[in-house]
Amino acid sequence: MIVRPHRHWFVRLFSWHGSVLPGILFRLGLNLLMSIIAIFCLDWYETLGVKLTLAPFSLLGVSIAIFLGFRNSVCYARFSEARQLWGSLLITCRDIQRQVLAISPADAPRIAALLMAFCYSLKHQLRRTDAREDLNRFLGDEAEDILRRRARTNAIELKISQWLADQRRSGAISDIVYAQLDNSIHQLSLVLGGCERLASVPVPFAYGLLLHRTVYLFCTLLPFALVPDLHYMTPLVSVFIAYSFLSLDTLAEELEMPFGYANNHLPMDAMCTNIEINLLEMNNQRELPEAPVPDRYYRLT
Amino acid sequence: MIVRPHRHWFVRLFSWHGSVLPGILFRLGLNLLMSIIAIFCLDWYETLGVKLTLAPFSLLGVSIAIFLGFRNSVCYARFSEARQLWGSLLITCRDIQRQVLAISPADAPRIAALLMAFCYSLKHQLRRTDAREDLNRFLGDEAEDILRRRARTNAIELKISQWLADQRRSGAISDIVYAQLDNSIHQLSLVLGGCERLASVPVPFAYGLLLHRTVYLFCTLLPFALVPDLHYMTPLVSVFIAYSFLSLDTLAEELEMPFGYANNHLPMDAMCTNIEINLLEMNNQRELPEAPVPDRYYRLT
Amino acid sequence: MIVRPHRHWFVRLFSWHGSVLPGILFRLGLNLLMSIIAIFCLDWYETLGVKLTLAPFSLLGVSIAIFLGFRNSVCYARFSEARQLWGSLLITCRDIQRQVLAISPADAPRIAALLMAFCYSLKHQLRRTDAREDLNRFLGDEAEDILRRRARTNAIELKISQWLADQRRSGAISDIVYAQLDNSIHQLSLVLGGCERLASVPVPFAYGLLLHRTVYLFCTLLPFALVPDLHYMTPLVSVFIAYSFLSLDTLAEELEMPFGYANNHLPMDAMCTNIEINLLEMNNQRELPEAPVPDRYYRLT
Amino acid sequence: MIVRPHRHWFVRLFSWHGSVLPGILFRLGLNLLMSIIAIFCLDWYETLGVKLTLAPFSLLGVSIAIFLGFRNSVCYARFSEARQLWGSLLITCRDIQRQVLAISPADAPRIAALLMAFCYSLKHQLRRTDAREDLNRFLGDEAEDILRRRARTNAIELKISQWLADQRRSGAISDIVYAQLDNSIHQLSLVLGGCERLASVPVPFAYGLLLHRTVYLFCTLLPFALVPDLHYMTPLVSVFIAYSFLSLDTLAEELEMPFGYANNHLPMDAMCTNIEINLLEMNNQRELPEAPVPDRYYRLT
Amino acid sequence: MIVRPHRHWFVRLFSWHGSVLPGILFRLGLNLLMSIIAIFCLDWYETLGVKLTLAPFSLLGVSIAIFLGFRNSVCYARFSEARQLWGSLLITCRDIQRQVLAISPADAPRIAALLMAFCYSLKHQLRRTDAREDLNRFLGDEAEDILRRRARTNAIELKISQWLADQRRSGAISDIVYAQLDNSIHQLSLVLGGCERLASVPVPFAYGLLLHRTVYLFCTLLPFALVPDLHYMTPLVSVFIAYSFLSLDTLAEELEMPFGYANNHLPMDAMCTNIEINLLEMNNQRELPEAPVPDRYYRLT
Repeated sequence: MIVRPHRHWFVRLFSWHGSVLPGILFRLGLNLLMSIIAIFCLDWYETLGVKLTLAPFSLLGVSIAIFLGFRNSVCYARFSEARQLWGSLLITCRDIQRQVLAISPADAPRIAALLMAFCYSLKHQLRRTDAREDLNRFLGDEAEDILRRRARTNAIELKISQWLADQRRSGAISDIVYAQLDNSIHQLSLVLGGCERLASVPVPFAYGLLLHRTVYLFCTLLPFALVPDLHYMTPLVSVFIAYSFLSLDTLAEELEMPFGYANNHLPMDAMCTNIEINLLEMNNQRELPEAPVPDRYYRLT
Repeated sequence: MIVRPHRHWFVRLFSWHGSVLPGILFRLGLNLLMSIIAIFCLDWYETLGVKLTLAPFSLLGVSIAIFLGFRNSVCYARFSEARQLWGSLLITCRDIQRQVLAISPADAPRIAALLMAFCYSLKHQLRRTDAREDLNRFLGDEAEDILRRRARTNAIELKISQWLADQRRSGAISDIVYAQLDNSIHQLSLVLGGCERLASVPVPFAYGLLLHRTVYLFCTLLPFALVPDLHYMTPLVSVFIAYSFLSLDTLAEELEMPFGYANNHLPMDAMCTNIEINLLEMNNQRELPEAPVPDRYYRLT
Repeated sequence: MIVRPHRHWFVRLFSWHGSVLPGILFRLGLNLLMSIIAIFCLDWYETLGVKLTLAPFSLLGVSIAIFLGFRNSVCYARFSEARQLWGSLLITCRDIQRQVLAISPADAPRIAALLMAFCYSLKHQLRRTDAREDLNRFLGDEAEDILRRRARTNAIELKISQWLADQRRSGAISDIVYAQLDNSIHQLSLVLGGCERLASVPVPFAYGLLLHRTVYLFCTLLPFALVPDLHYMTPLVSVFIAYSFLSLDTLAEELEMPFGYANNHLPMDAMCTNIEINLLEMNNQRELPEAPVPDRYYRLT
Repeated sequence: MIVRPHRHWFVRLFSWHGSVLPGILFRLGLNLLMSIIAIFCLDWYETLGVKLTLAPFSLLGVSIAIFLGFRNSVCYARFSEARQLWGSLLITCRDIQRQVLAISPADAPRIAALLMAFCYSLKHQLRRTDAREDLNRFLGDEAEDILRRRARTNAIELKISQWLADQRRSGAISDIVYAQLDNSIHQLSLVLGGCERLASVPVPFAYGLLLHRTVYLFCTLLPFALVPDLHYMTPLVSVFIAYSFLSLDTLAEELEMPFGYANNHLPMDAMCTNIEINLLEMNNQRELPEAPVPDRYYRLT
Repeated sequence: MIVRPHRHWFVRLFSWHGSVLPGILFRLGLNLLMSIIAIFCLDWYETLGVKLTLAPFSLLGVSIAIFLGFRNSVCYARFSEARQLWGSLLITCRDIQRQVLAISPADAPRIAALLMAFCYSLKHQLRRTDAREDLNRFLGDEAEDILRRRARTNAIELKISQWLADQRRSGAISDIVYAQLDNSIHQLSLVLGGCERLASVPVPFAYGLLLHRTVYLFCTLLPFALVPDLHYMTPLVSVFIAYSFLSLDTLAEELEMPFGYANNHLPMDAMCTNIEINLLEMNNQRELPEAPVPDRYYRLT
């Protein structure tokens, strides 16, 4: 994630960081090349009776803008849901910790460790990275048993649930308090299941492919439609239009799967650290991890 | 469902799999034919005083794009809701299993079997396929009784509910724990009822029909409106515009009823296997089914 | 409701059923007439200095399309909410029946009868038809007391609530089970209140009126704007544009109040029968009503 | 609120009631005047080199239509939420009454009176009218204490809560039943807080102002852009376009704050009476107020 | 927040307050300058073969309007969610206070103080201002402990939770009442977590940057595209179009982070005072703070 630098609007116009530009520079270059070809070949191919006018491209361009708007809504909604799930994870961790502190303060540190393991394991599951180090840090010997499983994050949740079941079986808590805490654990299930859903089922593939192709072909043909009217101004206007269409297309694709390391993805490292700080502080620990800070490119991971 | 292959954007432009192309190839061919007819007949029918210009088609095209955008939102919302319901099914199965493991571990395998039967039965109900084999696998002798009924999936839920009622009647669980588990069974009802609703009531028929017709007539007349301006370029531009309109129309139709086997439908086979793996692993079973893998066309069913 | 016939796309183009056409045929005829008048009078009124061009109509047409898109979203959202409420009714009836079977099986048939009476009474209330016959069928002597009241469906819910209160007062069920079942009855309140809200407060009247007028005036003036460009092709293009605008306007109006008998309204008869089948089967009744089947025009009521 | 009269579409075209026309008649007149000035001055100011063409106004008009569509969605969402809150109020009143009838029938009339006082007080609070008469009617002597307070509706809710607390303290109801009823009172809080939120924070002021100005300036300049093309037809087309833009702008403004007496506002008088009828009938009262009927202009207040 | 003054529409046209104008005046001036340059240089640069026409700018302008519409929806949704969270905070504070008054009236003033501290602390956290003064006012000696922590608002919530845990441990309240109040405290968690989510993760940075740049470049080039058609009218139309695009862009940016002091931000000072008044009055305190009143520029902070 790019942390928006609070700079003057004028400086921002030329800022480089956080824009999706790098990914589309090559395609803009191609578009520029096409514009120049169009200027030089115009006279030649018009003698062949080949001509392109802007009117059908206006119709097509506006239609594509409408479809791009739709795709952006859909992909942004996925990004936004992913963010809400991780927000809900912070809320739930604090809630479980708060309830355990109220009910059974002695067990609070162990539950905090399990909750942190849950968060880090979820992060690694979503990014398909190795969870071993983090699980060892929080779970010690128990980590091995978790790492042998396929559904690791769920197995950690099961451990919290088993602690709760033991409390109830031993009579330390009543059925009512059991049910109350079980509801909070259910929230963990919702977060886990929601993230898995977003990660496993993308927007129907055809949407992306369809728009990708249409935008691309549109940008390629556009210079030939602009050149009869604009002549030497074709490259400027053509690259400008291509920039706005291609970058929205690329941005939508980035937001569709928000669990990676790209500029506009969720900063799950920072979020995990933040949850850790919260839980430790609730347990009155003095030594807290550093609060996450964006790097010099304004990026959090 | 097509699992998006992570390939270079340039290769993707020409990828064949997962696009909705096959379903509209014939109609694009027709459009091409119309374009060629338009080029050759232009001189003849203009002498008859018949002419078509692009301006009214621009107005119509943009209007159709707006309506298509609306229809795509509506159909995508159905796809997305179906996906959420199946995501919720996984969450609920894990939750019930977790609660049963906490309350009454001895019954966990039987409840797991009932939950798996519920999922497979729901899949068969939505796809109108034969559930006998799967129900026999999970329920053994009890399967016959289920298969005689009309509302089979609901009958399986009733069996879980009866187990819970027996537990309560025998005093093994208190009313509070009963109510807590009953809430989870209620989640199964929500999933079942939600899927039945999506499967039984489509988007009002007239929307599809209206857009289908309008898009089709628009694409048929378009070449005649383009040809006075574009002449030999008519087929290229006409097929391009037709491609973007027809494929969005076709895609919306596919997403409207997402429970089949089409490219953009939900991979319910894989989802059922995934739930099975999760439940078996929660019961510490060693032999788990293979995780579902897309075939060579990147498809999951 | 029209049940979408699964036919070839080509046959569908010319299908008659389920389209909103009949309601707008007269207006399309009027539009055709205007087009012909425009063709014949063009020379005469242009000599008077009266002329209309397409450009302002493009602006207006696209604006109207945007506003129509907004109105369609709003009206479809009402249709969709109505459908969800009835889906929720099925879920709730099955849930209550399931809970009663678990708690107090002897009373299950009576509660089933009350639930069915609730559904049929709600249907009659929404359609303003006579509920006497259906209430007599399910409630026998009690029906008269219900029929004397103004808020009949609510009175039936009250009867279920009173049964529950009696169970609690007699000590047959604990306060916890009482609260659990009371939550399900609360769901009935939500469905009832939601349907009443949809039926009593339409979309602000001015939206419909405003668009109705604008669409109508637009379609009437359109031929005069098309005729200088298209001449003999005016009727074809004009009727085509009018068809797409008028039918979307008409369809939105139909969906706004989805509780009637029109083609795109909810099939509440079939839904009531479906709930009846489900409840009877849960009580192990052998003789179930026929499952509802669309008539030869693919219609369910 | 205008209750939609079910009349023939043709009669509706010329209906006067319920349209937002009166509020914009003056501005349409201004637009007409501008059109006539434009026709007469065209020759004069064109000699000065001043000219306006339609093309930039098309661009601007479509943009404004998109922004108007956005503003209408936002304002309609507020109207719709207000309607849902009042629908939820009816549901909650019936639910509380139902629960009190089940738990403690003797207190039902007093609770009904408090609920009715809550509804009427909320209405007066939202409309900033005097609640004294209605509160006296339902609360008798207690009314004075309520009227002295700033947060009156909340104080009435507190009275219901206090009754519940007394019941629990005296042991008449268990903690579980207390919690169940407390949940219903919480629903009252949600309705009250939701209505206060809608009433106190409008859509950001700049949206309305921005669109108001843009629409107005657009409509003022439009005739000068139309006149070169349309000449004598300018007034017709210009007033038509202005009508559709100005009335949507005005309608959005009306819907933004739906708690007044305007044509498209919520009929809170009728809703309060309706809740009163429901609660009285649930208490088996014979003499019910008249059901609210729209006046001769089809209006409910 | 600007409190909408209820003035005549005509006066409003020229009102200055609450419009986003000041922030874009400089950019409009720049646009005006460009227009004048365009008028004077037109003849010169056309001789160089450089020309710009309006057609591609129409296509681009409508596309930008669609994307701006999308961005406005997204940013307004954030504003709206922030408002709902603070509305929910008022509801939750009243609910907790109401429940404490019912369960344990003696503790009500202390809980009211903690709730007020929670609200003020949340305000200061979101605005990054110093909470010391307000926390001292409500918490006295306890404030120091809170101020030493990183997650202050959460620590205050923890204090309420601890009070509840003490009540339960001492047997003053049953587990059921504990669970009921714990649910209300969970609501505080939701508000806190929701506000933190909005404040920490903005809309993906690239959206803002992309639109910012596109809108800016569009407005800069626009005069050159308008001048061949409009000549001396270029400045008027160009500034008008730039005004509507730039102010929507600026407004979206303001709404994206609604927790500051800008004109369209949430009036959190007034909201805190309002919650204070409500809680004090529920405790029958006589001396209430003044109700917040907008200043002479109609602004609330």
